[in-house]
Amino acid sequence: MSNDTPSGDSTSTSTTTTSSQWHLVARPHGEPVPSDVALRTVDLPPLGEGEVRVANEFLSVDPYMRGRMNDVPSYVPPFRLDEPMTGGAVGRVVESRSSDLPVGTAVSHNDGWRDVAQGPAKAFSRVEELPGVSLSVHLGALGLTGLTAYTGLTRIAGLKEGDVVFVSGAAGAVGTMVGQIARLRGASRVIGSAGSAEKVALLTSKYGFDAAFNYRDGDVLGQLQAAAPDGIDVYFDNVGGDHLSAAFETLNRFGRIAVCGAIGAYNATGAEQGVTGTTRIVTRSLRVEGFTMGDHWDLAPEFAAEVGPAFADGRFVFDETVVDGLDNTFDAFVGLLRGQNVGKMVVRL
Amino acid sequence: MSNDTPSGDSTSTSTTTTSSQWHLVARPHGEPVPSDVALRTVDLPPLGEGEVRVANEFLSVDPYMRGRMNDVPSYVPPFRLDEPMTGGAVGRVVESRSSDLPVGTAVSHNDGWRDVAQGPAKAFSRVEELPGVSLSVHLGALGLTGLTAYTGLTRIAGLKEGDVVFVSGAAGAVGTMVGQIARLRGASRVIGSAGSAEKVALLTSKYGFDAAFNYRDGDVLGQLQAAAPDGIDVYFDNVGGDHLSAAFETLNRFGRIAVCGAIGAYNATGAEQGVTGTTRIVTRSLRVEGFTMGDHWDLAPEFAAEVGPAFADGRFVFDETVVDGLDNTFDAFVGLLRGQNVGKMVVRL
Repeated sequence: MSNDTPSGDSTSTSTTTTSSQWHLVARPHGEPVPSDVALRTVDLPPLGEGEVRVANEFLSVDPYMRGRMNDVPSYVPPFRLDEPMTGGAVGRVVESRSSDLPVGTAVSHNDGWRDVAQGPAKAFSRVEELPGVSLSVHLGALGLTGLTAYTGLTRIAGLKEGDVVFVSGAAGAVGTMVGQIARLRGASRVIGSAGSAEKVALLTSKYGFDAAFNYRDGDVLGQLQAAAPDGIDVYFDNVGGDHLSAAFETLNRFGRIAVCGAIGAYNATGAEQGVTGTTRIVTRSLRVEGFTMGDHWDLAPEFAAEVGPAFADGRFVFDETVVDGLDNTFDAFVGLLRGQNVGKMVVRL
Repeated sequence: MSNDTPSGDSTSTSTTTTSSQWHLVARPHGEPVPSDVALRTVDLPPLGEGEVRVANEFLSVDPYMRGRMNDVPSYVPPFRLDEPMTGGAVGRVVESRSSDLPVGTAVSHNDGWRDVAQGPAKAFSRVEELPGVSLSVHLGALGLTGLTAYTGLTRIAGLKEGDVVFVSGAAGAVGTMVGQIARLRGASRVIGSAGSAEKVALLTSKYGFDAAFNYRDGDVLGQLQAAAPDGIDVYFDNVGGDHLSAAFETLNRFGRIAVCGAIGAYNATGAEQGVTGTTRIVTRSLRVEGFTMGDHWDLAPEFAAEVGPAFADGRFVFDETVVDGLDNTFDAFVGLLRGQNVGKMVVRL
């Protein structure tokens, strides 16, 4: 990338005129396979007035992208066949015809799954570069991921001081933020589940969870109840299925569930396993609510103001699983669906 | 009963000094059987200062009572073995040592499952006697039953004008009120399910439902979707199980479920059938909330003010299934659990 043009100059000497992009070429059945996608290089047109060209530095891979590969209506529209896929990315402006975003500006945007993005300046958001912190933090802990955790705990679950909080998929990008925000907000006990002994150890040693268990050991209900002798008040659901059943059995009166995802179901092709314990919804006056971030962007300023300082002074920690190279983006995505990440999964270009 | 004492007189000439009461003598396994209960006649002590004696005229039997027969913690405590069961009742004061409730006053209270009740006047609530309307209306449409429908639709489900509303167990006491209150509040379409062709016919011919179906015909999902070509916005759940699964599949974005009961599960002894479709909670941003009336009495004045006039001028109708005789109270209760009622089930003494 070129960064030798004076800031504010609306022209550029960059010679980046192609973009290598991942296209969806077939709709996956179950787990995506390499023949479902293709990496293609396309020529970019010259910049129009008010447009910028961005060299991506990090790409985000997220579970929700699996849903977009299906041709079914959902909260985000499906990817189109034979077109480049999109997703979160951070990068730097390398050519600009907008005085709002001069060359060199760090930005986040949604034209991921490619090495070079370009378009109107308003499609790109300037991000703050924190000393000693990778730009990729804006794809995770201080980006959509952290805001998702914050929204689920505060607006959806109505977290109160003293609550016992349980989060599934706790070693994931959202999960580690859920645990830390719950603690910041005065939860009395924070419990997490994860899919390996290594992840479970990280939850208590690094992320401040009071208790954690490995759901692959089985008996999710028994393990949860052992970790929560006084029951739970809030469940942040990332996986659905047996975790949701176990939560219903364990929630105290007036318990709340924020449903953020059902990663365990995204690849499901067989008969759906039903959720049990739902009679507790009435006998314990429970509330269950699903949410997607498109409806809650208004919380972003409040989130940044409350959580930002906790990163600046080292109270919060975050993990990333970094995969290098655009060529490996698809493998990184499949690995994410298989749970091969600790913390936020990103691709470094 | 005696009603020959001048109103306001704090003494009485009543000679009612015994009470015949249904006791729980064994905890049922599955459907209750006659040997689980016993009808016993006990002597009543003389009235203390501030107490009243009430001859019950109607007793309420309700699904939640089945839960109280189990020795497990719930939102209402279990019935105690070898003690009289309790429940809604309306009657008339026959002896009084309280100037607040003189002889002849019509009252509602919770010492049902017996012919004569007595205790402090504050345990009995004066009710309005409407010309041409049975006192039993205060056990149902204008009592707890109607308030339950009102609370679920308004406070829990946040019913809005134009919503499509679905209610299961729609021919029951709560269900018929749900349909009529939904209409009163401007629902665009009201759909009900019930367990017989006769009940289904009543829903559309008498209670103003736009569509209704018989869930015993099977394929609850298919029948619901045929009745709701534009989906549903609110589901008032009285039965759980396959109805809840079908609702998840049919709810529109931002749909709400008020969970009032799971009558189908109360007698369940085998493995619980899981609820499917729960991944829609997140993909459609659904909210599911259970409630019990102990937390919502504060809505009673608002309910009476809004719905009372609709009875007075004939806009609302209600059905009762009346069983005669204290001896038949237990059979009436079992019949209720089997769905042998249309509208509110009461026992007339």
